[in-house]
Amino acid sequence: PFLYHIPLDPEESLELSWNVSYPQEAIFFQLLVKQLKAGVLFGMSDRGELENADLVVLWTDGDTAYFADAWSDQKGQIHLDPQQDYQLLQVERTPEGLALLFKRPFGTCDPKDYLIEDGTVHLVYGILEEPFLSLEAINSSGLRTGLQRVQLLKPNITFPATPSDTYAMDIHAPDIQIPNQVTTYWCYIHELPEGFPRHHIVKYEPIITKGNEALVHHMEIFQCAPEMDNVPHFNGPCDSKMKPDRLNYCRHVLAAWALGAKAFYYPEEAGIAFGGPGSSRYVRLEVHYHNPLVIEGRRDSSGIRLYYTDKLRRFNAGIMELGLVYTPVMAIPPRETAFVLTGYCTDKCTQLALPPSGIHIFASQLHTHLTGRKVVTVLARDGREWEIVNQDNHYSPHFQEIRMLKKMVSVHRGDVLITSCTYNTEDRELATVGGFGILEEMCVNYVHYYPQTQLELCKSAVNAGFLQKYFHLINRFNNEEVCTCPQASVSQQFASVPWNSFNREVLKALYAFAPISMHCNKSSAVRFPGEWNLQPLPKVISTLEEPTPHCPTSQGRSPAGPTIIS
Amino acid sequence: PFLYHIPLDPEESLELSWNVSYPQEAIFFQLLVKQLKAGVLFGMSDRGELENADLVVLWTDGDTAYFADAWSDQKGQIHLDPQQDYQLLQVERTPEGLALLFKRPFGTCDPKDYLIEDGTVHLVYGILEEPFLSLEAINSSGLRTGLQRVQLLKPNITFPATPSDTYAMDIHAPDIQIPNQVTTYWCYIHELPEGFPRHHIVKYEPIITKGNEALVHHMEIFQCAPEMDNVPHFNGPCDSKMKPDRLNYCRHVLAAWALGAKAFYYPEEAGIAFGGPGSSRYVRLEVHYHNPLVIEGRRDSSGIRLYYTDKLRRFNAGIMELGLVYTPVMAIPPRETAFVLTGYCTDKCTQLALPPSGIHIFASQLHTHLTGRKVVTVLARDGREWEIVNQDNHYSPHFQEIRMLKKMVSVHRGDVLITSCTYNTEDRELATVGGFGILEEMCVNYVHYYPQTQLELCKSAVNAGFLQKYFHLINRFNNEEVCTCPQASVSQQFASVPWNSFNREVLKALYAFAPISMHCNKSSAVRFPGEWNLQPLPKVISTLEEPTPHCPTSQGRSPAGPTIIS
Ligand SMILES: [Cu+2]
Repeated sequence: PFLYHIPLDPEESLELSWNVSYPQEAIFFQLLVKQLKAGVLFGMSDRGELENADLVVLWTDGDTAYFADAWSDQKGQIHLDPQQDYQLLQVERTPEGLALLFKRPFGTCDPKDYLIEDGTVHLVYGILEEPFLSLEAINSSGLRTGLQRVQLLKPNITFPATPSDTYAMDIHAPDIQIPNQVTTYWCYIHELPEGFPRHHIVKYEPIITKGNEALVHHMEIFQCAPEMDNVPHFNGPCDSKMKPDRLNYCRHVLAAWALGAKAFYYPEEAGIAFGGPGSSRYVRLEVHYHNPLVIEGRRDSSGIRLYYTDKLRRFNAGIMELGLVYTPVMAIPPRETAFVLTGYCTDKCTQLALPPSGIHIFASQLHTHLTGRKVVTVLARDGREWEIVNQDNHYSPHFQEIRMLKKMVSVHRGDVLITSCTYNTEDRELATVGGFGILEEMCVNYVHYYPQTQLELCKSAVNAGFLQKYFHLINRFNNEEVCTCPQASVSQQFASVPWNSFNREVLKALYAFAPISMHCNKSSAVRFPGEWNLQPLPKVISTLEEPTPHCPTSQGRSPAGPTIIS
Repeated sequence: PFLYHIPLDPEESLELSWNVSYPQEAIFFQLLVKQLKAGVLFGMSDRGELENADLVVLWTDGDTAYFADAWSDQKGQIHLDPQQDYQLLQVERTPEGLALLFKRPFGTCDPKDYLIEDGTVHLVYGILEEPFLSLEAINSSGLRTGLQRVQLLKPNITFPATPSDTYAMDIHAPDIQIPNQVTTYWCYIHELPEGFPRHHIVKYEPIITKGNEALVHHMEIFQCAPEMDNVPHFNGPCDSKMKPDRLNYCRHVLAAWALGAKAFYYPEEAGIAFGGPGSSRYVRLEVHYHNPLVIEGRRDSSGIRLYYTDKLRRFNAGIMELGLVYTPVMAIPPRETAFVLTGYCTDKCTQLALPPSGIHIFASQLHTHLTGRKVVTVLARDGREWEIVNQDNHYSPHFQEIRMLKKMVSVHRGDVLITSCTYNTEDRELATVGGFGILEEMCVNYVHYYPQTQLELCKSAVNAGFLQKYFHLINRFNNEEVCTCPQASVSQQFASVPWNSFNREVLKALYAFAPISMHCNKSSAVRFPGEWNLQPLPKVISTLEEPTPHCPTSQGRSPAGPTIIS
């Protein structure tokens, strides 16, 4: 019995199920092919391309069916992998279709093979419509192909049993019609009953209208600001002209789900406070429908089921924002393939704002805008990198789920939290600055933790005065092209930088050297008392080693070459 | 019969012989152990350390003798290599001692193993004085150990037969007594006969006094400047107070040899001009004696035998200097482990100074001072890296031999030659600037080529005005610590830079961006006509791929675990 399932293609003709074995460092996959034509491709790649992908192929030459471990080159051409890493365990005809059972170690120590890591994995598939004489005759560019993002390495956590005294509340779309366009963000306001007292949410799970499993991409529930005692009952696309302004004040995440995720459980000792005095009676449901086939007239009532209890748990859970302040002083030059920006939560802030016993982070949701490609938060203690809080080397802005951590991370007073985002601005002409706009960038890790503290936001940005020094300085090399007059906005200044190698490298050097401004803020967006400007960059004297994957010995591998399937 | 031989230890109790098989991408070694005690270690490491070395070990536990493939960790502790890369072929007792015959592929594709590349290899050895119960019981720090530098991958060139009409001239030390100190540079002036006409040197080889093979480290013959018609017949240490000043004008390399090198042959169609009008009648022999055991009273008459002919060959060979100008504007910050400086020979200079048919480089001698660790020269054509002229990833300033290229490199008009040196200044407190001093640095590749042109020197350095911009610019960030007044010398300015990360990175960015001053000079140290200041840095749009070593399949490997030797 497989624990995890996901449809791969919009038609749902391919369904993947899997289990993770941490002791064996391997994944057991079952690929169910519902209408088998002449074969399928399945595999993984860095960002969901069918080029440079690590694949298994099931194909037929007309007489015989074969299964083999393969890879595609940068042109999409398929080749046999001389070393078989996927091990075919079983092939079975079921009433639903053909079920292929195979096993793949997390890492193979072959640099050409994909390394399965924590975080997002881009699964790719292709459908073979006709026989091929050989594997090498297949080129992925001629096939119907696609990608599906998923977290394969689910944490191995035993979930607390749901206590008997919990209630369920379904917050879902009211039987709406999914618009016939590829992307829709749907907004729906739900009102809690009058006088609804303080409860703890202890668990939530998706409720997906049957048949729409491949259309509902992600959902979030936000609480409105406590001051908001009257929010219009809106129900419609979030970008609609009719959307009331007030909905912009409903931004405090309560629950989030994305495709491939299952129920989210709070640790037994904590829950998120919900209802009662000091919190708004209004919540906003946001559903992202992804409808690539532009199916018309499909109705939907998907949403999230909240499980809550009036037996308050020992701790309130809280959500804290780590990373970069939303400000244009942090910018990414254009045409960069992997530019890194880093935001800090300094020892000074954790010293002041955390309780003496520290806090425990149990879940994390990473967030960037369109050019984000990797995100990582590291905890440093006494100047040494100590532990990874959350890392996603294949992060995609289109797949932002809340993820339980494999292991809770305790943050002590005086610890430093360092969040780095890697951006790809290859196809941009001008610098991308930090900010709220979809074409601006963010670098955020929302960490879920307990016990709740007053610290809502622990973020940084480069000191603005040093950035002005930078503009002055590159002007000496570039004939005064950047306006350093007081009227120019930072965004305008960045837009006028001639991005030669010197200006790029010096910007990197600036960000790695200049003092920072800290936002060490309470819920009310008020800073904790103290001096937060011109803070020194935290020093890190030793970094964590990359974990070396355990390399399977050749005994564990199948013989090279395709397997014949009867 | 082995082609190459080298003593490993000063006592000459270990002698290594080897052959290179390019088709098999492997080396066949014979290690002759003259007085076997309880065993030996032999292997290779990055710079001759016994830590992180790739080793073979012959040892005994008192009863049985074993041979195994091993490696040492960063503490010098020996471990068995799970994958045997050295293959023991034969063990033989000879009258001279125990001869071990084994084979090692150039690369093993195991990142922990040493990759045998072109250029210098640091061989290491250790002598086991007593039995060890197991391999893991051995720690290299307790043994008598040492290193020997050698070029293992000798080019596979068939040498032209020495024509019958060649004469030999021996230029050697006149039976001197080697001083009882570790390092001696000995200088000896030799005068050519009156009226000695123009000849071509076509070959030269070392003549080493028997018994001193391990003491004579390297030798060079320099021609004195053509103007010098009277040079005193000096014979003594080069750093002696008695050394006449005039010897400083004897710097034009005629021949060079270093330990492990064999005879040097000119290509059949070329020779180096020697004697006759327009050249000095005086040459200087320089012998570097390396006497680590401080042996006293050893006499020596080593030198170089020049083979020359009066049948002048079709082409005169020439020597050209590539790399960096000797100037303090090119500097390396202190405490850097791998800082790269790059010197250019631009398309503009090769366009102007090379003959229409181009030139052919057949040999190369790399040169830096004490902090040099790697040197490479790449030829770029039409903005793309085209071919490597010479590369040494384990370069040592203590081992500067002239090396024949495996394959001649043709340089066309308009080509660019890019020479990069990597320096390690970990143990320096102040910046290391370019210059002639032993504590200053150089980055030079002397290339031997034909047909000879007027171009003696094709080198560059950063434009001095841009360096002053750099000093101004970092002052804005560092409270004006660098004096930018006209009286300050560049060396003084570099000495006053506070080397924080910003100043280091911006210096790198400057060198990678700022325009250069070219030295495109004739023999007479006069520049070719044209504008050579403020030249743009040559643009390189595509770089050469690292060659991936061919990985031996597991079939070619010995079974894991030690071999018992009867
Ligand atoms: Cu020098």
